[in-house]
Amino acid sequence: MATVKLWSDTEVENNSRVKAVFDDIRSVRKADFINNFWRGLANQPELLEATWHRLKGVMAAQEGGLDPLTKELIYMAVSIANNCTYCIHSHTAAARAKGLSDEQYEEFLSVVGMAFQTNGLVTGLQIPVDDEFEASSLGQ
Amino acid sequence: MATVKLWSDTEVENNSRVKAVFDDIRSVRKADFINNFWRGLANQPELLEATWHRLKGVMAAQEGGLDPLTKELIYMAVSIANNCTYCIHSHTAAARAKGLSDEQYEEFLSVVGMAFQTNGLVTGLQIPVDDEFEASSLGQ
Amino acid sequence: MATVKLWSDTEVENNSRVKAVFDDIRSVRKADFINNFWRGLANQPELLEATWHRLKGVMAAQEGGLDPLTKELIYMAVSIANNCTYCIHSHTAAARAKGLSDEQYEEFLSVVGMAFQTNGLVTGLQIPVDDEFEASSLGQ
Amino acid sequence: MATVKLWSDTEVENNSRVKAVFDDIRSVRKADFINNFWRGLANQPELLEATWHRLKGVMAAQEGGLDPLTKELIYMAVSIANNCTYCIHSHTAAARAKGLSDEQYEEFLSVVGMAFQTNGLVTGLQIPVDDEFEASSLGQ
Amino acid sequence: MATVKLWSDTEVENNSRVKAVFDDIRSVRKADFINNFWRGLANQPELLEATWHRLKGVMAAQEGGLDPLTKELIYMAVSIANNCTYCIHSHTAAARAKGLSDEQYEEFLSVVGMAFQTNGLVTGLQIPVDDEFEASSLGQ
Amino acid sequence: MATVKLWSDTEVENNSRVKAVFDDIRSVRKADFINNFWRGLANQPELLEATWHRLKGVMAAQEGGLDPLTKELIYMAVSIANNCTYCIHSHTAAARAKGLSDEQYEEFLSVVGMAFQTNGLVTGLQIPVDDEFEASSLGQ
Repeated sequence: MATVKLWSDTEVENNSRVKAVFDDIRSVRKADFINNFWRGLANQPELLEATWHRLKGVMAAQEGGLDPLTKELIYMAVSIANNCTYCIHSHTAAARAKGLSDEQYEEFLSVVGMAFQTNGLVTGLQIPVDDEFEASSLGQ
Repeated sequence: MATVKLWSDTEVENNSRVKAVFDDIRSVRKADFINNFWRGLANQPELLEATWHRLKGVMAAQEGGLDPLTKELIYMAVSIANNCTYCIHSHTAAARAKGLSDEQYEEFLSVVGMAFQTNGLVTGLQIPVDDEFEASSLGQ
Repeated sequence: MATVKLWSDTEVENNSRVKAVFDDIRSVRKADFINNFWRGLANQPELLEATWHRLKGVMAAQEGGLDPLTKELIYMAVSIANNCTYCIHSHTAAARAKGLSDEQYEEFLSVVGMAFQTNGLVTGLQIPVDDEFEASSLGQ
Repeated sequence: MATVKLWSDTEVENNSRVKAVFDDIRSVRKADFINNFWRGLANQPELLEATWHRLKGVMAAQEGGLDPLTKELIYMAVSIANNCTYCIHSHTAAARAKGLSDEQYEEFLSVVGMAFQTNGLVTGLQIPVDDEFEASSLGQ
Repeated sequence: MATVKLWSDTEVENNSRVKAVFDDIRSVRKADFINNFWRGLANQPELLEATWHRLKGVMAAQEGGLDPLTKELIYMAVSIANNCTYCIHSHTAAARAKGLSDEQYEEFLSVVGMAFQTNGLVTGLQIPVDDEFEASSLGQ
Repeated sequence: MATVKLWSDTEVENNSRVKAVFDDIRSVRKADFINNFWRGLANQPELLEATWHRLKGVMAAQEGGLDPLTKELIYMAVSIANNCTYCIHSHTAAARAKGLSDEQYEEFLSVVGMAFQTNGLVTGLQIPVDDEFEASSLGQ
């Protein structure tokens, strides 16, 4: 259950501001399905607009050279470590839709598991950062 | 400061078990530099061996099709969300060494920022998972 | 499901120590409803007493000048970032009961989303604290 | 140390895109001081623009009825639970500048401590959400 | 719901690599029951093997002097703070099976609650580490 | 640096409420050393009293059967997963003072590392809780 109402398509039809965002989501994604996140954010129209506008830009950007699947893997990794159940489901589904293979998913999980483990050990031991990792040492 | 001593090369030389791991790290990485994480884990030889052995396998695996830079980005994403200062520094440096460009880093940070933001909103609103994201709906 | 039994009112009646706490909760809140948190803590009477006693004091304190709704918003913000599903639901409901409007909730969520995003970016970039933010610079 | 260079004012002067953002920050804040967060984000001009633009809007919004100090307290609460050292310092300083008194700070910390404690207990006991906290029960 | 299929015993029978791990789990635990974690990891056979192999070693190690119940309490504490619902349930059940009494569980929860609270306060106040806690001061 | 002043012994002498707490800490711990956490909390006398009073009770309780070293290990585990640098240092030092051996520390770290790893994997895969782990199945 959500802390807010999830808007039905009928309710969206009656609010032009929310409808404009939903129309754009459908257009960009070339799909009729609108997931619950947006149906919940519809209660906060300004936040809905700002979030969709920014997300669309970030995920569509191409100049940086990160392909769409890589971006989904980064999104999944953050969502796992932040423990966001909904986000894990939605972005794993998105990664599947963008071609994530079983072998890649296994490698992804292995890296995530390893990162968690060493995060825990490093934090437990309070390892100090090596001078060699300083930005200045990296020529930046 | 760490909660344990960071082993110097001289101390490593006097412990054959630790030395074997350090030799392997240098061999695999083709570099003399050993970062502080391993110098701290040297106090726990069994854990040192298990951690290095597993990390080497996970990061070297190729069959899955995730390239080394993508793995570093996943590692960085988890480390940021888990807030591991040392790990962020070491894996950002590793990603730089593996070719991360300024443009890719900006895209990476944009995705991380977006993921954090939507993680927070989704969690705040307690959005329920769509049926469409169920594994069974994805043909798995 | 909980890891412990949730006590029914009948079970509470048979334990004078637990009953005294439940009676006080009902008295302070001027309501018969006791939420599941206390029904779970009833298995640990000493912890139940200490937690209720402290919570009552913290939420009732007035001298500091934070009004009850502001305290709920702080509680909600911590609970979201700590990802406590139950706490998010109970304190959002409490904030609603204390007058949280839809407009305030949208602003709250916007600030939370922004805080998450900049938390992620700052952590990713490992920004050092400005000297200007030192307590001594603030005259404290 | 940051993973990127922190831009000096001289460097900012030579980049019109970054300079425009810094000029706006100074104008909005009516202060010459620019904190390190923006000096680090200057390496990612598109992200710098998007972050500042959104932050300015969120923190300046008035219609919702949350006053500036309350917003800072929410920001602080999220930053503490997300463990963002830089953000805790910068937003505590901002709250002080906006009038946070010692008494309010003590009350804030007391609520934060209580929220952390009950977050831990609730999560440990895996308390199920009461039906009474459902959005539908709240008339929303 | 999981992001992957949970393998039934029949499916396991048809995969010799997965079957070998399940046989070993049953042998070590002297029980027929295999919990969902392993049924989900069965989709990633290499990760399944590595995880079980390491877990078996860590939990069985005796030389360090930490008894099995203490290890479960440490596992529970980490899982609570990392907010892993499944892990909290499985390790609380394991601790119960290893003899955790109601009194010990109450003490455990009290320490966890206290740790959460002081973690939040210390982080909020950004308390600097005392020189006396340096490893070198402790003779290590 | 802290967000508040750390009180010197001279300053404590001039505040009877804070002095009473510091005297009790010294008495209970049979040591003159007062660590920075209490020197920071001294700015919030009511919070200082409540925190010390509760901490003293929790750590001293004996009836539950958890020995002092086990309590410190639980405290350390929570503090690592919550990423509280100060708390990790102070409680690791306390555990050392209570007899934590190098072998026990290695086992502790191994369990913590394993817990982190499986927390990450379980969360990534969103494994559903087995019916067998229900409290009702455990006879509670």
